[in-house]
Amino acid sequence: MSLTVSPLAPTEKPHLPALAGVRLAAIEAGLRYQGRPDLLLVALPTGSAVAGVFTKSTTAGAPVVWCRDHLDGGTARGLVVNAGNANVFNGAAGRDAVEATAAAAARVLDCAPAEVFLASTGVIGEPLDGAAIAAALTRAAGDLGDHDWTGAAAAIMTTDTFTKAATRQAKIGDVTVTLNGIAKGSGMIQPDMATMLAFVFTDAAVPAPVLQALLKRAVDKSFNCITVDSDTSTSDTVMAFATGAGPRHPAVTTAGDRHLRDFRQALEKLCRDLALQVVRDGEGAQKLIEVTVRGATSRAAARKIALAVANSPLVKTAIAGEDANWGRIVMAVGKSGAPADRDRLAIDIGGIAVARAGQRVAGYDETPVAAHMRGREITIAVDIGLGRARARVWTCDLTHQYIAINADYRS
Amino acid sequence: MSLTVSPLAPTEKPHLPALAGVRLAAIEAGLRYQGRPDLLLVALPTGSAVAGVFTKSTTAGAPVVWCRDHLDGGTARGLVVNAGNANVFNGAAGRDAVEATAAAAARVLDCAPAEVFLASTGVIGEPLDGAAIAAALTRAAGDLGDHDWTGAAAAIMTTDTFTKAATRQAKIGDVTVTLNGIAKGSGMIQPDMATMLAFVFTDAAVPAPVLQALLKRAVDKSFNCITVDSDTSTSDTVMAFATGAGPRHPAVTTAGDRHLRDFRQALEKLCRDLALQVVRDGEGAQKLIEVTVRGATSRAAARKIALAVANSPLVKTAIAGEDANWGRIVMAVGKSGAPADRDRLAIDIGGIAVARAGQRVAGYDETPVAAHMRGREITIAVDIGLGRARARVWTCDLTHQYIAINADYRS
Repeated sequence: MSLTVSPLAPTEKPHLPALAGVRLAAIEAGLRYQGRPDLLLVALPTGSAVAGVFTKSTTAGAPVVWCRDHLDGGTARGLVVNAGNANVFNGAAGRDAVEATAAAAARVLDCAPAEVFLASTGVIGEPLDGAAIAAALTRAAGDLGDHDWTGAAAAIMTTDTFTKAATRQAKIGDVTVTLNGIAKGSGMIQPDMATMLAFVFTDAAVPAPVLQALLKRAVDKSFNCITVDSDTSTSDTVMAFATGAGPRHPAVTTAGDRHLRDFRQALEKLCRDLALQVVRDGEGAQKLIEVTVRGATSRAAARKIALAVANSPLVKTAIAGEDANWGRIVMAVGKSGAPADRDRLAIDIGGIAVARAGQRVAGYDETPVAAHMRGREITIAVDIGLGRARARVWTCDLTHQYIAINADYRS
Repeated sequence: MSLTVSPLAPTEKPHLPALAGVRLAAIEAGLRYQGRPDLLLVALPTGSAVAGVFTKSTTAGAPVVWCRDHLDGGTARGLVVNAGNANVFNGAAGRDAVEATAAAAARVLDCAPAEVFLASTGVIGEPLDGAAIAAALTRAAGDLGDHDWTGAAAAIMTTDTFTKAATRQAKIGDVTVTLNGIAKGSGMIQPDMATMLAFVFTDAAVPAPVLQALLKRAVDKSFNCITVDSDTSTSDTVMAFATGAGPRHPAVTTAGDRHLRDFRQALEKLCRDLALQVVRDGEGAQKLIEVTVRGATSRAAARKIALAVANSPLVKTAIAGEDANWGRIVMAVGKSGAPADRDRLAIDIGGIAVARAGQRVAGYDETPVAAHMRGREITIAVDIGLGRARARVWTCDLTHQYIAINADYRS
């Protein structure tokens, strides 16, 4: 199906610079889609460090299992991502396709298969044609170049309506390094340790264990704080690659290294940027919703309440209808199972006090709240009034278009 | 808004007989709706036993708190239910409205306020006009009669498109007693110990503690196994009333009494009948979906997996689109968090084997599955292959009409 671009798409597309050591090729393998690239090959120089976080689903796909199994090596020479077929729930045939793909990429890149990382996104339960991918990879070798990041982001899209990319610079000591990232959404999104697919690259020299610690921390604050539809993918994957091919900077050996402070922040901002782009392209999204919970008894409780609000179909449809129906927020807090006291609850919408101490504020005037609901970005703040813990998550509204996409399209 | 009758509505309406001791009046209090009854008064004879189970929401409504506080008394003389305003999250004003309503009903019925039970359904966070209800109750007293069960069921509807009622007979010893029940849905439905509103009446003489035990057990197998949209109401209430005004039967003193075997079964069947009527009138429902999970490691795990499937927006939209997209069932099992092994999973749709041992069955032919998907009643069976526990839940599909109802209507 053809989808119009999300109204929440960023107005300016970022320009991702070439990144020392990274070469890309986006090509048509014809796996499912016709007339568009659906396969991404990324080549990395010898000694590139790799880190990754993956779905916790008990029905994780064969590519996820492959990546987990080979992450311990700590080095990567290649990344292969296909769209259109998730290679999930294919039993031995799924493992065979993964091995054939890694072997083909290893031949093209002249490395060991264990240094090739894989991700697949698309339909579940249909055999993936490993031979078609292998043939396409051979063709892709001739196309490798250092500039087409937009093409790379486009090759991994499924129901996405815009390419998702972000770039940041950071200082390590006095030396400026670069981080580039690409991601895709846009349904089956409530990441559990990772989102659908996102890949971050840097020319900095960051050892794999350090990169892993930094990535995990950044993902917890970004991709793990978004939800489109509460459904957790079998293929969630966020990986980071550090080529070390950029300008020489002071060596870093631990995640807490003082030289990494700026890099850490840049990585977190990059991940949040990409994660919010995923929400902005949530299937059918017309509104971006930020839910902040304060005053909870623990961080876990705050997060549980925030997700209960962000995943409530009744809250999401009310926002789609631009209805300031804050009673549904009360309902969602109440159903979450996390500690809450009805008579201490406070709720703000768009920064306007709606409820205090378990009831509507005196002289409540819906007019300014209704005006906020007509905007593109909705903020909901809930104060539980029991403790000091807080959490923030992002989601989108639930619209007719979500139904149309998912009732009519086999993704 | 005006809603067309659900295509899943039962083709035959049950006729509920008069039930010894129960008198009903359905009247217009004009609380929110115009031109339809929105207030139900039920009068019960002295000594009627009462039992109830209520929402576990931490933001439960004032009527729920009232009922819980007075259940220990074990006897009821009256029940007042209003539609259009849930009297939830109104602080002290909510408690005042509850007390005024109970006092007014007590005057009409010549009993203590503590013997009057209350339930409210509708919008959250708007003050309930207790004086209007009190005035209406005075008028209702003259209308009390023993036959208009359909009017009673109609008075408690909100977005329901048909009245929900059921009746059963049961033997206690050689004596036939009768059970009548009414319920309403139809959004904000994933009951947590009770559903939106359901009331069961019997002319049998069943002591309150026994009635409570029987009701809890029946609710666990019926109302607690349905979900429309995963949202748990602040007002969920199931109550049972036993007038003891029917034909004399052997005395029963414990829930395990052998004389109660038939009554127990009848109560469970009645509750399941009402619960399925609630699902059949789920907002926007076009398909009734039964999800059975077998082979789980525990009953809790089986239930968790079944609810993950039944609440998945992607599973529900696929069914709305009549798409045999069983990969989404794999995803939902995987995200549930309950123990599962991808390589042991088996899935049947409409009794047809779709997947075995972690992959699509050899020679899979979608034709008969697609034919099943075009029907009104969809069955999904998942075998986890790890243990012996099982669970069954019911839900409906997620359609454009759900969005229309909830984005446009403040319920």
